[in-house]
Amino acid sequence: MSSSYGENIKINIFGQSHSPAIGVTVEGIPGGKVIDMDRLSEFMRRRAPGQNEYSTPRKEKDIPDFISGIVGNTTCGVPLTALIYNTDTRSKDYSELKIKPRPGHADYTAEVRYNGAQDFAGGGHFSGRLTAPLCIAGGIVKQLLEAEGIEVRARIYSIAGVRDQGDFTETLDKKPFPTVSDAQGELMRQRIAEARADGDSVGGIVECIVDHIPAGLGDPMFGGMENRISSIVFGIPAVKGIEFGIGFEAAELTGSQNNDPFDIENGRVVTVGNNAGGIAGGITNGMPIVFRVAFKPTPSIGKEQQTVDLTKMEKTVLRVHGRHDPCIVPRAVPCVEAAAAIAVYDALLGYKKGLD
Amino acid sequence: MSSSYGENIKINIFGQSHSPAIGVTVEGIPGGKVIDMDRLSEFMRRRAPGQNEYSTPRKEKDIPDFISGIVGNTTCGVPLTALIYNTDTRSKDYSELKIKPRPGHADYTAEVRYNGAQDFAGGGHFSGRLTAPLCIAGGIVKQLLEAEGIEVRARIYSIAGVRDQGDFTETLDKKPFPTVSDAQGELMRQRIAEARADGDSVGGIVECIVDHIPAGLGDPMFGGMENRISSIVFGIPAVKGIEFGIGFEAAELTGSQNNDPFDIENGRVVTVGNNAGGIAGGITNGMPIVFRVAFKPTPSIGKEQQTVDLTKMEKTVLRVHGRHDPCIVPRAVPCVEAAAAIAVYDALLGYKKGLD
Amino acid sequence: MSSSYGENIKINIFGQSHSPAIGVTVEGIPGGKVIDMDRLSEFMRRRAPGQNEYSTPRKEKDIPDFISGIVGNTTCGVPLTALIYNTDTRSKDYSELKIKPRPGHADYTAEVRYNGAQDFAGGGHFSGRLTAPLCIAGGIVKQLLEAEGIEVRARIYSIAGVRDQGDFTETLDKKPFPTVSDAQGELMRQRIAEARADGDSVGGIVECIVDHIPAGLGDPMFGGMENRISSIVFGIPAVKGIEFGIGFEAAELTGSQNNDPFDIENGRVVTVGNNAGGIAGGITNGMPIVFRVAFKPTPSIGKEQQTVDLTKMEKTVLRVHGRHDPCIVPRAVPCVEAAAAIAVYDALLGYKKGLD
Amino acid sequence: MSSSYGENIKINIFGQSHSPAIGVTVEGIPGGKVIDMDRLSEFMRRRAPGQNEYSTPRKEKDIPDFISGIVGNTTCGVPLTALIYNTDTRSKDYSELKIKPRPGHADYTAEVRYNGAQDFAGGGHFSGRLTAPLCIAGGIVKQLLEAEGIEVRARIYSIAGVRDQGDFTETLDKKPFPTVSDAQGELMRQRIAEARADGDSVGGIVECIVDHIPAGLGDPMFGGMENRISSIVFGIPAVKGIEFGIGFEAAELTGSQNNDPFDIENGRVVTVGNNAGGIAGGITNGMPIVFRVAFKPTPSIGKEQQTVDLTKMEKTVLRVHGRHDPCIVPRAVPCVEAAAAIAVYDALLGYKKGLD
Repeated sequence: MSSSYGENIKINIFGQSHSPAIGVTVEGIPGGKVIDMDRLSEFMRRRAPGQNEYSTPRKEKDIPDFISGIVGNTTCGVPLTALIYNTDTRSKDYSELKIKPRPGHADYTAEVRYNGAQDFAGGGHFSGRLTAPLCIAGGIVKQLLEAEGIEVRARIYSIAGVRDQGDFTETLDKKPFPTVSDAQGELMRQRIAEARADGDSVGGIVECIVDHIPAGLGDPMFGGMENRISSIVFGIPAVKGIEFGIGFEAAELTGSQNNDPFDIENGRVVTVGNNAGGIAGGITNGMPIVFRVAFKPTPSIGKEQQTVDLTKMEKTVLRVHGRHDPCIVPRAVPCVEAAAAIAVYDALLGYKKGLD
Repeated sequence: MSSSYGENIKINIFGQSHSPAIGVTVEGIPGGKVIDMDRLSEFMRRRAPGQNEYSTPRKEKDIPDFISGIVGNTTCGVPLTALIYNTDTRSKDYSELKIKPRPGHADYTAEVRYNGAQDFAGGGHFSGRLTAPLCIAGGIVKQLLEAEGIEVRARIYSIAGVRDQGDFTETLDKKPFPTVSDAQGELMRQRIAEARADGDSVGGIVECIVDHIPAGLGDPMFGGMENRISSIVFGIPAVKGIEFGIGFEAAELTGSQNNDPFDIENGRVVTVGNNAGGIAGGITNGMPIVFRVAFKPTPSIGKEQQTVDLTKMEKTVLRVHGRHDPCIVPRAVPCVEAAAAIAVYDALLGYKKGLD
Repeated sequence: MSSSYGENIKINIFGQSHSPAIGVTVEGIPGGKVIDMDRLSEFMRRRAPGQNEYSTPRKEKDIPDFISGIVGNTTCGVPLTALIYNTDTRSKDYSELKIKPRPGHADYTAEVRYNGAQDFAGGGHFSGRLTAPLCIAGGIVKQLLEAEGIEVRARIYSIAGVRDQGDFTETLDKKPFPTVSDAQGELMRQRIAEARADGDSVGGIVECIVDHIPAGLGDPMFGGMENRISSIVFGIPAVKGIEFGIGFEAAELTGSQNNDPFDIENGRVVTVGNNAGGIAGGITNGMPIVFRVAFKPTPSIGKEQQTVDLTKMEKTVLRVHGRHDPCIVPRAVPCVEAAAAIAVYDALLGYKKGLD
Repeated sequence: MSSSYGENIKINIFGQSHSPAIGVTVEGIPGGKVIDMDRLSEFMRRRAPGQNEYSTPRKEKDIPDFISGIVGNTTCGVPLTALIYNTDTRSKDYSELKIKPRPGHADYTAEVRYNGAQDFAGGGHFSGRLTAPLCIAGGIVKQLLEAEGIEVRARIYSIAGVRDQGDFTETLDKKPFPTVSDAQGELMRQRIAEARADGDSVGGIVECIVDHIPAGLGDPMFGGMENRISSIVFGIPAVKGIEFGIGFEAAELTGSQNNDPFDIENGRVVTVGNNAGGIAGGITNGMPIVFRVAFKPTPSIGKEQQTVDLTKMEKTVLRVHGRHDPCIVPRAVPCVEAAAAIAVYDALLGYKKGLD
């Protein structure tokens, strides 16, 4: 319908930017799984605001409060619900938005969708803040995948056209600015700083790899891994595109260039190259899943923008106050990992259920 | 699970390339809708093989045989099922594939997924032939959308790196090679002809526009229009990427460049420009939905390719015989329209159901 | 939505009584399962019309025609679709029903539901004939359950108030009139014969047992085995009630009478008695699942009945012609088995999917 | 999967008897609906414990704390989540249950289901306490139905074999012991008091009527109103049977007795009598939906019971301490109303969504 995802595990996200709390319910995690809460907190911290100069000054600790489904640190099999209380809310910042919708935001579309009853404060349910509960679910599931030997890692692939360099062969989760090349990362930071100084914002691309994944996951047609991953990833605000393997570049190649030849390596089937991003016919082939996600620049900018007054139905101008990130890409990296982890774990549960 | 899609209407596709028939069941079409069968046939013909020199020589008429849900030409409200019988099947072409999987195809992944029982003939359920039932459902739904004033049109945006030119403002459904610019279309055809002469294939990009769509369709998060459209579009074989509005290009812009300012036009809210592709927060804003889909080159090529022998677990070579298209992009155009129509109609039914 | 059921396997039933065919698509059966087609035919025969003097004279062979998902007799993992062609249709019998709805039938409700476009011929999608595709799916799944050691068996528990006698400890699938006590069965047949002679019909109760089922199947709340079984069983036309274990009788007992004490038998946990019908908290406890299903008398009767003329909006009378069973309970027995088998197999797949 | 229900609105219940909180998320309520919080509190009070001498002495106020989806008293369209904090928990009462499962409870089945990690305290997710969030969702939806003119009312139909008398034509929601006949109600209370004095418990039947409901709601087969209602009602703990209209009694009648003749009343189609309980072919016919639900006696009794020691795998005895109701039927009445309201509203949203 909207805020739920999955068939073998189901996540259900609720809350608005300025409601008392935001949260997530996860159904389908088997009983008896031990969650490492310290590692979950570390994961949450990668997404939390206020970590560095590039993110919103809004202060939120983003510590999950588990209210069901866990006894101590062990899952008990029934729906797991965790909340994050909203503490640093300043709703007065947003009073104007019902009349003058912000360009690039969901103010106008949500107002139409919800019969004029949208909760505008902080963007309501459409706020990037709602990726925090996604990261709770994803952070837990990442641990479950790691217990199966599967690693999900993401990086900043580009910001404002500046591309990362080097092979992305291991996790960058300890880096506050997760690029392989620190030099390229420094260039990206400069672009962000420039945008911020200019009252503007920049976009970028996140790349994600799911490594050591078995062959045979996913289903044909609408149950393929691309379908599953894209349908959760577009749930992250500001995502406008996704591509698997070499993606759009494949459209310019010939079949002989694009096909990944098969080979045998250490007694197992592999492909030479991975243009397919580890997926054929929607199903994993045992090579790493690779995909990239395009994030538009943060729509909240300090510059004056043209909008309309919905009461007078006439053109007007707006200057967005409130707090926001000049570039959300660094904080989006764990969100993409979370989304990928959930999609992959859901498929993995499906893969294991056959009575064979 | 796999071969079904939708929440307010549900489509369920079945069949293999060489099974007695392929087909689709559609649930949720209201009773009393009159289907124009001639227009449906025209739509099906745009996808059918054997139309021109660029498509597989396999001869299939692709005429839907309705076995339920329709009385005369009028829907009766219950599940609508239509079949297409497979007539021109030559299964002997495919006997080698269980041992030597074709690079770029689902032979290997399906064999793992289905415990060694995959139906290899013609690619089984993974064949592009399964887009025919998608087009039955989509062709019907397109008519239902048109009755609501909504138009879905797609074009060839590029093939082998050659881009179409000109504004895509009206349907090209009468053109056998649907580009705005015939000159660019001619260049694309040359690239296809060259690839075919070389025993190779080429990929391309399809662009789709959903025009005259009301504001307010879609849901937040995982129910957004991008999620809904991408999760059906990746069900078309060979799709490796999707982007909405300016998509990946947005990642290189600033917020002030990318945000679409609001304006009033003829008493209704519009945006100046449409970088967002008609969607904000997952919900339509009343501007046309615009998206592009990357298709990889047809994996079936005449050239010798490296693969493995799964019985001996060693490297070997393969030359794919059988019949195939040197470029599937022209035939993919109606498939993308079909997928978009289904996703949009599904959201539209959801939009109408509120008790307001 | 309507005609589909299941989360781990999904069945999707389509067709009308007089459409060219009726059928079912089953998704989620693992690849490589061998179906015994003779046994499936035997199962189908138990439901087929025209077997004896108590069923409709309509002649239909009810032989499934598999059009996808099976290669030879082996499932290939993708959606399995089977059709039954309608051959002995006489649509003229039903022309009056759009104006004068038959009491006890869905003529009126379907006409309202489908905007006046309901397919009246033979009851359309609401016909008991649609239990044939249910039995295709159920007959296959019963075989899959038997391979897991689980037996599903049903019997006539009562007809027209005459109750069967004796313990129901083994399958009665070879009996054309499946009661434990042949003497009681004979009494029931007399009641049916009397009703038929009188142009009337009678109802009855079917009891179903799922034996040798493991403990731990099902989920809490809305995913319990009672929920799962009831939500498919009410899909069989004419069902008006269901109870598990001792069911309604439990409402008259005390807790100390009704609770099943635990015991150990051959090293495994059992209960003394099975008032609970093998289910506690929605989850199987390892004892047989036991439930009973109430079928109303066939609404089609030869007697003149009061109805309304929907064009004139006034009272009138109707005499139903057409062909029908004076008691559908004997033929409902395999339908209940089919429904139970599907519900249980669906839960069993869910049970096996945990990554433990 | 388990703790979620619905297709047009979705409810998702979480929490354990002794977890920090229990709660519910409801998706699909349109934006702009005003909730009367006083009436919701009244509704919740009908289910709350500690109201009279027949219910558990556990003290819980059961006041919903809304954390999302509502601004003031008005829904904003996005997922609505409400919590009830568990305050009066005494987990020491339950320490023995992991070893000695209580007869009639889900202790044993949940332990198997959740790999030995079940949360035993107070019955965990299987506790009757989880009907409180069901009543939050149902209490809200009841108000939405009333705005459409639809009334949902339930009564105690029988307890311990003592049946209520009189026509159930209007709501009894002001009565603490909702029977039509106060005299019969008094008899029922005596049975409860006797059972309690004896350290025992009694069961009963709840009858529910959905009045002033339009014709045409529901879908065929597995989407019928009986399927929809039963699949939520069995989510209430202790339910072992359900019947619609005259239900099991219909199995003993002839067709001419059971069929409800049509008639015209005030220009609208009605039936003479309502044996069908307002449903034909799964779809409402405009007459009131009527159904009855059998509740087993509370499994928690004060008497010593036979159980097993799961560590020693031998027979033993158990005396259940803790707090419990000698009869849960009075408190189940609003729960059945809640379940029915949710099922009906879900179908009503589906009914309104057709584009006709």
